[in-house]
Amino acid sequence: MNVDILRYLTELYELKDPVLNKMEKFGHENEFPIIDKYAGKFLFIITKILKPKLIVEIGSGFGYSGYFFCKGLTDGKIVLIDYQEKNINKAKEFFREGGLLEKAEFKVGDAVDIGENYKNIDILFLDLEKVRYLEAVKKLEKNLSKNGVIIADNVLWHGKILDKSDKKAEKLREFNKYMAEKYDSIIIPVGDGLLLAVKR
Amino acid sequence: MNVDILRYLTELYELKDPVLNKMEKFGHENEFPIIDKYAGKFLFIITKILKPKLIVEIGSGFGYSGYFFCKGLTDGKIVLIDYQEKNINKAKEFFREGGLLEKAEFKVGDAVDIGENYKNIDILFLDLEKVRYLEAVKKLEKNLSKNGVIIADNVLWHGKILDKSDKKAEKLREFNKYMAEKYDSIIIPVGDGLLLAVKR
Repeated sequence: MNVDILRYLTELYELKDPVLNKMEKFGHENEFPIIDKYAGKFLFIITKILKPKLIVEIGSGFGYSGYFFCKGLTDGKIVLIDYQEKNINKAKEFFREGGLLEKAEFKVGDAVDIGENYKNIDILFLDLEKVRYLEAVKKLEKNLSKNGVIIADNVLWHGKILDKSDKKAEKLREFNKYMAEKYDSIIIPVGDGLLLAVKR
Repeated sequence: MNVDILRYLTELYELKDPVLNKMEKFGHENEFPIIDKYAGKFLFIITKILKPKLIVEIGSGFGYSGYFFCKGLTDGKIVLIDYQEKNINKAKEFFREGGLLEKAEFKVGDAVDIGENYKNIDILFLDLEKVRYLEAVKKLEKNLSKNGVIIADNVLWHGKILDKSDKKAEKLREFNKYMAEKYDSIIIPVGDGLLLAVKR
């Protein structure tokens, strides 16, 4: 896709919110990787469409992707989990500023361990260390609701997914293969590749 | 995205069905434009996720995109509408071969006019003449169910969406603008661009 069309799409469909702009600036200044803005819009749309009661984020960082999910919620809630307290504190700050605190719960610790405490998850979002994706889905899939979906970021691994010498790419290929075999899945080619999977 | 990654995605996530292969061959031999195979997989996934009761296709051709929707249905039905009887007859033939006839209804005539007879549409799929997209959505949006979504194909118009001299591109830009303003929408960059929109 050419640059002009990409700009056309981004501008036409941008989710406008000054807090998102601040979060992007914060991520940039702190060299904290965040999800692609257009991928974020996809998270918002899929939430609007599915109307989930419970979203659980495994690896929330300072809440950028969580913010898109939360903006899309009708009457459910989102749980943000990250192992760093300073990330979660920052997320709380941004959510407070955006008026979204009431729809969100914040947890500090190992995201997979904490995630196991939540049952009937309608959207399980994976954005933790890439080598742990497969472990995470195997431990948490039993906690999905009947119609639950899994979304995972970075499944194209910055274009290095086919690199045989990259250890993380190898683990992500294993994860992608598992998701293709066990679920009805697709990778949406926005940002760094968003996997969208539903139980067969 | 490079060609190797595209092949990786397509092969990993292909919906395997010999009838789909036949339909692709038929489309190719008859120079009948059909939806991109990867975009078709997206239609299947979104149907699996949303579990719609009623899908209405405005401009079905010989049923290639409809087949993906129908394969994704849990207990709903799809209505295929095309103005050419020979297209609809061919669609019936393929659906029969795939064992999908029971979930499908087939109509011949002006797809917008016929579409107006259906209420509570959970997924409205637009794939008619591109100059009529805006007319179609304005006439049919009142027939969407409460959580209904609209999906439209070719909204990037084969990369010519920004071409100021292309009359169809101009009409599609008007449509995209309408969808961005009135709905929560995004264009999924698969195939020729799939618009996915939900009521605000």
